[in-house]
Amino acid sequence: MSESELDAGLESLLSRCVVVLVKTTHSGNIGAVARACKTMGITHLRLVSPVADIDDDAVRRASGADDVLAQAEIYRDLQAAVADCHMVVGASARSRSMVWPVASPRDIAQDVYRADGGFEMKVVSGEDAGLTTALVFGQEASGLSNEELHLCHRHVCIPANPAYSSLNLAMAVQVVCYEMRMAAMALVERTVGVSPAAGAHSAVLDADAEGWDEPRASHSEVEGMLQHLEQTLIAIAYHDPENPRMLMPRLRRLFQRCKMDKIEVNIMRGICKSILGKIAKDNIPDKNG
Amino acid sequence: MSESELDAGLESLLSRCVVVLVKTTHSGNIGAVARACKTMGITHLRLVSPVADIDDDAVRRASGADDVLAQAEIYRDLQAAVADCHMVVGASARSRSMVWPVASPRDIAQDVYRADGGFEMKVVSGEDAGLTTALVFGQEASGLSNEELHLCHRHVCIPANPAYSSLNLAMAVQVVCYEMRMAAMALVERTVGVSPAAGAHSAVLDADAEGWDEPRASHSEVEGMLQHLEQTLIAIAYHDPENPRMLMPRLRRLFQRCKMDKIEVNIMRGICKSILGKIAKDNIPDKNG
Repeated sequence: MSESELDAGLESLLSRCVVVLVKTTHSGNIGAVARACKTMGITHLRLVSPVADIDDDAVRRASGADDVLAQAEIYRDLQAAVADCHMVVGASARSRSMVWPVASPRDIAQDVYRADGGFEMKVVSGEDAGLTTALVFGQEASGLSNEELHLCHRHVCIPANPAYSSLNLAMAVQVVCYEMRMAAMALVERTVGVSPAAGAHSAVLDADAEGWDEPRASHSEVEGMLQHLEQTLIAIAYHDPENPRMLMPRLRRLFQRCKMDKIEVNIMRGICKSILGKIAKDNIPDKNG
Repeated sequence: MSESELDAGLESLLSRCVVVLVKTTHSGNIGAVARACKTMGITHLRLVSPVADIDDDAVRRASGADDVLAQAEIYRDLQAAVADCHMVVGASARSRSMVWPVASPRDIAQDVYRADGGFEMKVVSGEDAGLTTALVFGQEASGLSNEELHLCHRHVCIPANPAYSSLNLAMAVQVVCYEMRMAAMALVERTVGVSPAAGAHSAVLDADAEGWDEPRASHSEVEGMLQHLEQTLIAIAYHDPENPRMLMPRLRRLFQRCKMDKIEVNIMRGICKSILGKIAKDNIPDKNG
């Protein structure tokens, strides 16, 4: 499977998500939401009774995601906006008078894109092309009403600072859509055994990992470098083999845990060679004198 | 442990994070970043050569996080802004000419707040109150320069839609800070799952068992070592600043990914000092002759 096929699979999973904004009051927020969605690969936007228009401010804040704005669908009520959706997730503040199943964005996303019966998998297998997850966000100041929340199958709550928990609308959308993308990526990875855009999302922590730009040095190459280094440190009188202390073990530990690549080994050997050459050259006048 | 004690523990972990904005051009973005940080419990903000002022627009977008704005510290350059930080994470777009350790926000956050030797755990045990993670974000249009990225130990890249990957600055900060909070919450949960005091202590013991017997070097200590190294490489004529190629970036990448401890930095500086001393001494007869 090529990288572009993987990306296509990922986009196909994410295309089953729709973001629904209810009674949004600031047009700039609608634009910022469009941008947030699109960066995460979610391009379906629905507006329920928007108070704000899609005006210049919205387009400006959308910053290149104006196609998402242009295709946004307007609905009279939430009921109609989620009628074709199979999972309706409502954004909720923490404390409500009635307990409702509340989950973190991560739990919700992993549930949507789980491989063992997560309903989005049916989309992949072509079982029901209409399966859709709605991510519903309420008005800026007040959030979703209790009545609106009761239309949702699940409630999502972003863990926030209890002393200051008020995320901007578009920020909340960004976090939830980010988790949807992360979960969809993980599902693609589990399904086909390869990660989409591996370089971007998998941890390329060291030279050992896939995606490093140089081949890793072999054990004997690192060993040769360490011997060259020791010889150099003796020549500059920094290291005394008669009184070695922990110097070489410490340098070994340092360079061995780096998982050096071949170029790095060559650089270190080049440095040693230069030092030894410099010392040999500088010492000639002494010997002659 | 009461809920308020848990919250206090969480806030204490997050208080070791600082968000650094480099050359931000829009004041509204600075305000939106302050809000994004504070919702996730991160309240330290540093501004490096900001193009924008903290004006009314910034305060308006901060929307109640104006205390974060008021306490924001201004720095002349990135080097100074991260001098006291022990882990410097730079936000990066995907493709760079040289591969640098790149990770997702989740991997970075879990690495910072991992129980088995994650250096933040030492803060919990009071071992070093100065340990700090810097999360660095570049200018809106251009991001961090290669030079700025080379100052960072790790690069973080938010997995995004390849066709439209441009997150707004404050959105990127929101996602990264959200992952920091999620990881810190998971750490508190794991730690308290055993018993608060014992959990924190045993995590440090794990780090010792792993062999981390020396305190970690700060960013400015590693930086000082790299400058000393560069000076030395010039002196031995291995490095030509007029024709630098990729030598110093490669050495930076090598030493920064090691997470050097203080003794290792001292050893490397000792080696540099010996070489420079040796050259100076050997060169005296030449100069006199």
